[in-house]
Amino acid sequence: MLRNLTKSKCLRTHCLRNKLVASHGTLPLLHRLHFSGQVQQTYLFNVSNANYNSLHKYPNISRKFISTEAEKVTTESSKFGRKLVIASSLVLGAAVVFATLDYKHAESKAKEYENKESPSILKRGGPKNLPIATHLIDERDFDINKPRLVILGSGWGAISVIKGLEKDKYHITVISPQNYFLFTPLLPSATVGTLETRSLLEPVRSLIKGISAHFLEAKATDICFNDKLIELSPVDESSEPFYVPYDKLVIAVGSLSNTFGIEGMEYCHFLKTINDARKIRKKIMDNFEKASLPTTPPKERKSLLSFVVCGGGPTGVEFAAELYDFLTEDVVRYFPSILRNEVQVSIIQGQDHILNTYDAKISDFAEKKFRRDNINVVTNARVQKIEPNHIIYKMKKSEDVKELDYGLVLWSTGIDMNPLTKTISEKLEDQKNTRALITDNRLRLKGVSDSSVYAIGDCSTIENPKLVQQLMQFFIDADKDKNGRLSYNEFQALAKKIGRRYPITKSYLKKADTLFARYDQDKSGTLELEELRTMFEDIDKKLTSLPATAQVAYQQGKYLGKKLNQIATAQKTKIFPPPSDYSVNTDNPESDVDDLLPPFSYAHFGSLAYIGNAAVADFGTGWTWMGGLPAVYLWRSVYFSEQVSFRTRALLALDWSKRCLFGRDISKF
Amino acid sequence: MLRNLTKSKCLRTHCLRNKLVASHGTLPLLHRLHFSGQVQQTYLFNVSNANYNSLHKYPNISRKFISTEAEKVTTESSKFGRKLVIASSLVLGAAVVFATLDYKHAESKAKEYENKESPSILKRGGPKNLPIATHLIDERDFDINKPRLVILGSGWGAISVIKGLEKDKYHITVISPQNYFLFTPLLPSATVGTLETRSLLEPVRSLIKGISAHFLEAKATDICFNDKLIELSPVDESSEPFYVPYDKLVIAVGSLSNTFGIEGMEYCHFLKTINDARKIRKKIMDNFEKASLPTTPPKERKSLLSFVVCGGGPTGVEFAAELYDFLTEDVVRYFPSILRNEVQVSIIQGQDHILNTYDAKISDFAEKKFRRDNINVVTNARVQKIEPNHIIYKMKKSEDVKELDYGLVLWSTGIDMNPLTKTISEKLEDQKNTRALITDNRLRLKGVSDSSVYAIGDCSTIENPKLVQQLMQFFIDADKDKNGRLSYNEFQALAKKIGRRYPITKSYLKKADTLFARYDQDKSGTLELEELRTMFEDIDKKLTSLPATAQVAYQQGKYLGKKLNQIATAQKTKIFPPPSDYSVNTDNPESDVDDLLPPFSYAHFGSLAYIGNAAVADFGTGWTWMGGLPAVYLWRSVYFSEQVSFRTRALLALDWSKRCLFGRDISKF
Repeated sequence: MLRNLTKSKCLRTHCLRNKLVASHGTLPLLHRLHFSGQVQQTYLFNVSNANYNSLHKYPNISRKFISTEAEKVTTESSKFGRKLVIASSLVLGAAVVFATLDYKHAESKAKEYENKESPSILKRGGPKNLPIATHLIDERDFDINKPRLVILGSGWGAISVIKGLEKDKYHITVISPQNYFLFTPLLPSATVGTLETRSLLEPVRSLIKGISAHFLEAKATDICFNDKLIELSPVDESSEPFYVPYDKLVIAVGSLSNTFGIEGMEYCHFLKTINDARKIRKKIMDNFEKASLPTTPPKERKSLLSFVVCGGGPTGVEFAAELYDFLTEDVVRYFPSILRNEVQVSIIQGQDHILNTYDAKISDFAEKKFRRDNINVVTNARVQKIEPNHIIYKMKKSEDVKELDYGLVLWSTGIDMNPLTKTISEKLEDQKNTRALITDNRLRLKGVSDSSVYAIGDCSTIENPKLVQQLMQFFIDADKDKNGRLSYNEFQALAKKIGRRYPITKSYLKKADTLFARYDQDKSGTLELEELRTMFEDIDKKLTSLPATAQVAYQQGKYLGKKLNQIATAQKTKIFPPPSDYSVNTDNPESDVDDLLPPFSYAHFGSLAYIGNAAVADFGTGWTWMGGLPAVYLWRSVYFSEQVSFRTRALLALDWSKRCLFGRDISKF
Repeated sequence: MLRNLTKSKCLRTHCLRNKLVASHGTLPLLHRLHFSGQVQQTYLFNVSNANYNSLHKYPNISRKFISTEAEKVTTESSKFGRKLVIASSLVLGAAVVFATLDYKHAESKAKEYENKESPSILKRGGPKNLPIATHLIDERDFDINKPRLVILGSGWGAISVIKGLEKDKYHITVISPQNYFLFTPLLPSATVGTLETRSLLEPVRSLIKGISAHFLEAKATDICFNDKLIELSPVDESSEPFYVPYDKLVIAVGSLSNTFGIEGMEYCHFLKTINDARKIRKKIMDNFEKASLPTTPPKERKSLLSFVVCGGGPTGVEFAAELYDFLTEDVVRYFPSILRNEVQVSIIQGQDHILNTYDAKISDFAEKKFRRDNINVVTNARVQKIEPNHIIYKMKKSEDVKELDYGLVLWSTGIDMNPLTKTISEKLEDQKNTRALITDNRLRLKGVSDSSVYAIGDCSTIENPKLVQQLMQFFIDADKDKNGRLSYNEFQALAKKIGRRYPITKSYLKKADTLFARYDQDKSGTLELEELRTMFEDIDKKLTSLPATAQVAYQQGKYLGKKLNQIATAQKTKIFPPPSDYSVNTDNPESDVDDLLPPFSYAHFGSLAYIGNAAVADFGTGWTWMGGLPAVYLWRSVYFSEQVSFRTRALLALDWSKRCLFGRDISKF
């Protein structure tokens, strides 16, 4: 025993030394692990960028070596060999990693925790007289000397706020019924096993470690804005609800799928959560296995193998594409060949085209690709009802009512409010009858006066400015020479000012000269009040809400995280930002720092979609890209770079490799 | 588009060439991937065993190179750098794989399937007049011209038979309610996320591809031995049961957990299936999240964090060890520190020691290790009842009844028959009142006379020979000189013969000389009939059943697969194996080839168990090994080598690496 332990220690020291060598630029590195009588040899030759540099230092040795060997064996070839060498390098690499970087840090870790006592019993209060969690389980009162920031949610918006926050500015608590962040754009890939579900997840607890935040797994059911309390329920609802107090609150709870009140939604699958993806994967395998039974009648088999997607947006389209990949790459390999003939993938889309928010060229490309792949694309059709085994839809133009048997139907159209946002909108006067929480362009929830509540992501929408309503104010301010009309210079300054105050108008006010020329209808060389009114009315009409996408939520979170840092600093140091174009209510800076900081401004970086061995990208400025392999790599590399942690990035790369080495896993569980 | 395609083709050709080089022994290999205007450079240096040989060819270059580099950088060190270089080489390696080995084979695949028609409607028959699946969905009558071999199950036994079968000997159908093989020995690692669940699975359809077998996902509910029909139900029971005919049948359906009729089993978790592991993982995370809520009272928190294992066998012990690893490595990192103090892992064992089937030294080592780790080991205790929140057990010696609060209880003691084996045992006269299906030592099910049914693995047990019952026969045969007593030579020949006929007796008959001396009580130099009777009686008493382990099932499957090949060949060629010592009923070889072939012989290769940063091994011959890191590597490498496919082997290595780079995933879903 002792002997083994000593040896294991030597072993680790030995490995450690070797690894240090590796991390600083050695070209070939030889590992030998000796232990307990038998010698286990492992060899790892490892080159990172740093190593590549060292390669340059020894060009004669290494390059010559490469070419000699290469010439020797170029003539031989074998598909198996090719696969084997790549796979074995993966395995060897992995084996070396686990053989060297392992173990025993655990015991020292275990000693780290301090022996803290349990906290005292929580006081009750608030409108429902529930326990108020003034301190969390490992906190004393003196631990809490900073403003309390609570973030509801663990999606794109919430995670982006978290990543932007600095340590020690706030006492931060993140609350969500899911203890992980889900990389939603790749969810369609998880439905058929191209990616593993866990590769799309990152635990919230690991994301908040850097800012020493707390996490509570609970569902927010209500918010008392007056008392600044959030009402929470434990997810299993086995114990009493409780309150968590806040000074600043970020609502980033996302949305539900919009069912448009259609009957039969209980037969549909959705694709919003990781469990949705799991259920779909299991259902697909269920259907294939059932279709493979000798007793399944041909009609039922066709019905089992009919996959219907309602909604031609990116999620629906990507699911159809992944399904098609799965059929052509894996089903043909493992299942009775007859099944492949009987599979039918259909997309039912209410609009003229699938991917209708993308450039028309892209919709067209995707539709053509799908038709080539025998994916049944039905456009201009409205789903009327979903029965247990078939779906009923009506063609918009001809008013024909059609039926389609299905084995699985995915519902992926539009978004709806979730229970918490519904409750909030019923509670606040300014939020009545909306389809999302309305915020100003500083992302502050309308109806809460003290800038203590923000809402971001799918659950919110930014109220557009009504320029016309501020016409007089703008006109008077801009008319510097007080001559009752705006010269071009005066208008240019105004356009810039409006653009800074309402970033969403920027794109419409960008070309001040053409705008000025167009609305100066009497060609007087100046803009009169009525001419400016016409311009403002036209702009007001053109303004639309931002789409409910991960990109918007992420940018909002980033903006908010940065702003919250600035607010905390200003309030602590009492140094406030100077008033600027975008400042509002500048009379008392201390009362609301938010008013002095710039509003949120969205920059569209483009939209992507995978359409099955091909991908499309719309960069929003008329520039599009569609194509096969290179576009697929663009699609992958964008998502690869957007990962929230190194861990998920590595897992993603491994999953893509796994799939292409071994195919998808068809195990059903 | 066209441009892109051409480029992608070039890319693939280019990679292909490089990879072929790699597969034949180049030492450093340089990959450059250029595409789409941008240059993406990736470098992979890769050494497999083949490459090691080439290393020897150039000892001067490579070794010198290593040492120079090593000396240069040994002084620098950084933990981050170390992790980064290993991780990035993993990711880079993976990226290269997916960048090179990818895509476009799909479309050609899709063309491969033939346009077969659907089969005609199945005829009905059998005792219940159900449809008989004489042909499967992509078969015509003329496809089936070989004996039908049906394998029930997809566990160790079944998979081992499949791996041993040759193509074209039988029309093979594998039937199981699970469409995957599960690597059960590593199941405890999946409960806390050390390994991912899918890494333990291999789809049956991929395992049977090589022998062109068919797979049906269904549950066998009964067997009509007279009509040679298996009654099957689809797993979701939504459609009618049906029959599948067989000529040879292998029953390898495994077992259930034995609950010993104890009350409250509905509150227990088991650890037999992959879903069990998933449920446990979710429950553990549930409990930790709930314990982290500020409103959970200290008493309830302690109860939530009390994990109780009933049963001190390898599964229970390994689960406790994995749980302990999880606590010390991950819980302390992410959860409030107070939780670590309140966690309690307990093992309740009915016997004197945990791991009681292992060598006493090993039990002792494991118990000491566990006590050091503060795992609460309770031995000599019998569980009496399980209540929703606490477990009641009685100490065997003192008769004290004790209670233990729990947040999760794992039941892992003993095995019980599953519904199919129960049905069979009630049906056959020879199988009444048994705890497993009884087979002869050729693994043929007792009670079925025509050698058409075999049973292997946990669901079966081999009937031990009663040597005494055959005493006269053996004595007469052995007494060559017919003098009424056995000389040492005659006895030696007899011992050898018995050993060959009943391999299980081999170890008792091994030392013929000492045996002869011990039982020659009158020191006559010969063995009389009565002396032989005493010896046989003693041996009969010592014989025990084989344990219900993966190792036994695997060896039985291997034996059976080989034998089934031999039987098919013999029946086709009409060339039968010559009679031998182990042959029985040799009169009509044609009637039953099985009788001429050797019986099953088990060779114990040892037992392993992981006990948390340490492992133990019992090699069965008194040789044991226990210790820290080296033993853990032995444990890992044994399981690594036992994987049924290259795929699971790679996944296993990756999982081990993942865990040590990133820790376990604490996402709960």
